Amino acid sequence: MKIDILTLFPEMFPGVFGSSILKHAQEKELVTINVVDFREFADNKHNKVDDYPYGGGAGMVLRPQPIFDAVEEITSQTEKKPRIVLLCPQGETYSQQKAEELAKEEHLIFLCGHYEGYDERIREHLVTDELSIGDYVLTGGEVGAMVLTDSIVRLLPGVLGNAESAVTDSFSTGLLEHPHYTRPADFRGLKVPDVLLSGHHVNIENWRAKEALRRTWQRRPDLLRERTLTEQEKAWLHQFEEDIKKDL
Amino acid sequence: MKIDILTLFPEMFPGVFGSSILKHAQEKELVTINVVDFREFADNKHNKVDDYPYGGGAGMVLRPQPIFDAVEEITSQTEKKPRIVLLCPQGETYSQQKAEELAKEEHLIFLCGHYEGYDERIREHLVTDELSIGDYVLTGGEVGAMVLTDSIVRLLPGVLGNAESAVTDSFSTGLLEHPHYTRPADFRGLKVPDVLLSGHHVNIENWRAKEALRRTWQRRPDLLRERTLTEQEKAWLHQFEEDIKKDL
Repeated sequence: MKIDILTLFPEMFPGVFGSSILKHAQEKELVTINVVDFREFADNKHNKVDDYPYGGGAGMVLRPQPIFDAVEEITSQTEKKPRIVLLCPQGETYSQQKAEELAKEEHLIFLCGHYEGYDERIREHLVTDELSIGDYVLTGGEVGAMVLTDSIVRLLPGVLGNAESAVTDSFSTGLLEHPHYTRPADFRGLKVPDVLLSGHHVNIENWRAKEALRRTWQRRPDLLRERTLTEQEKAWLHQFEEDIKKDL
Repeated sequence: MKIDILTLFPEMFPGVFGSSILKHAQEKELVTINVVDFREFADNKHNKVDDYPYGGGAGMVLRPQPIFDAVEEITSQTEKKPRIVLLCPQGETYSQQKAEELAKEEHLIFLCGHYEGYDERIREHLVTDELSIGDYVLTGGEVGAMVLTDSIVRLLPGVLGNAESAVTDSFSTGLLEHPHYTRPADFRGLKVPDVLLSGHHVNIENWRAKEALRRTWQRRPDLLRERTLTEQEKAWLHQFEEDIKKDL
C-alpha cells in the first residue's frame, strides 16, 4: 500500500510514523508513506496557499490550485485512481468499518487542511471521501491523518504479530474487552479476582465472557442492540438488571 | 494549565506539540506539557512495565506499579487532585462537550497504553475518566492524547487569534459550515457561485445560512434533531425535501 499525505505541517509526522508498528510496517515494506508539503506546489511567487473568502468574512480559504496540482503530480505515474480523503469536521464519522474498507485500497491520499476552509471545488471535483475522526474541533487534519494511517496500516496482512493481533481480535466479538489483571495478585491491598488464580479454565472463560458483557452493557448498550444474544447472555443481562434493582 | 502525558513512546510527541497552535500556546506559557516515559518508574531491574495476564490468554497487561508510582510522583507537589484520563477503546466517546469540560481543569494527566491491556486496578483505583476518540482500533493511546491536547488547549483563553477562533465559532451554531470559495473565480472552468461575487451582503448571508443548513441536513441530520429551527429554516428544509421528490 502507498499512502501520500498532503499537509502544510510535514514536521508533525516523523515522530508518529517512526515509532512502533508504523515504523515496522515501513521497514518490512508493507506500506510506503510519503508526507508532501503542498505549499511547494503553489504557482505564485510567495508560495501562498490560501486567500480571502469570496463574499467576505473572517478566516482564510485554501486555494484549489496547489492542492489540485499536488494530487496530479502524485497520481501522474499511477494507473488506478486512488481514494482521496479530505479530513474535515463536516465529513462522515470514521469507524473501524471504514478502516477495513480503506485497507483494501492500493493507494490512498490524505488531504489535511489547517484551521482554514477548503475551497469548495476541492470537495466537489477532487476528493472521493470526506472523513471526520470525531465530533470535536482540531487545529488541523494532521492528527486525523495519523489516526487513519495507524488504523488502516495495522489491518494490512503481515503487519501485526500474534501478540498484537490478539488484542484486535477481541474487538471483532462486538463486545468491549473483559478486565485484565497481571502480577502482583495483591497490589497495595487491591486483589485479583480469585477465579483468575484458580487455574480452572472453564470458569475463567465464563467469568471473562460475563464481565465483557457487563462492561458493554454498562458503557456501550448501543453495541448490544446490534448483537444476536445467546441464551446465556440473555440470562446474564437479566441478572445485571436484577442486581441493580436490589441496590435501589 | 498543566498536562502530563504518560507513555512508553515519548518520541511520538515532539512533532505535534512543537507545531502550530500547540507550539505557540507553550511559548506564551498558557500551557505546560510534559511527556513522561513511565518505564522509568518500573521497580524491577529490567524496567519491565508489562506481564502475562492472570488466567492465561494472548497479549500482555500493563502492571499497576509503574503507572501508580509515576502518577504519585507527578501529583506529589500538587494540592488539587488532577483529572487522570485513560485513553482506551472501552472509554466514553470523546466530544467537544468533553473538551470544554476538561479545558476548565488546572491539571490533566493522560495515560497512554500501547496495544496491551491495562491492569484493572489502574482503571478502578487510579483514573478518573476513560475516554475513546472514536470507534476504531489504534495501536496505542498516544494519538488520542494528541487529539485531547489539541482540542483542549485551543479552548484556553488567549490561545487562538481572531482568524482561527472564527472557524471554531462556526461550530457553535450547531450546523456544519457553509461552502467556502476563494480566488480564482474560474478555476479550470469550475466557477464560484454568482451570489458570492455580487457584493450583496444580505443575499450572501442568506445563501450561507441556507447552504449550511443543506449540508447539515444531507450529512448530519442528527444535529438538526437537537436544534430549535427558525421559520426560515423550516421553509428551507421543506424546499430541500421537495427538490428531492422532483428528482425522483
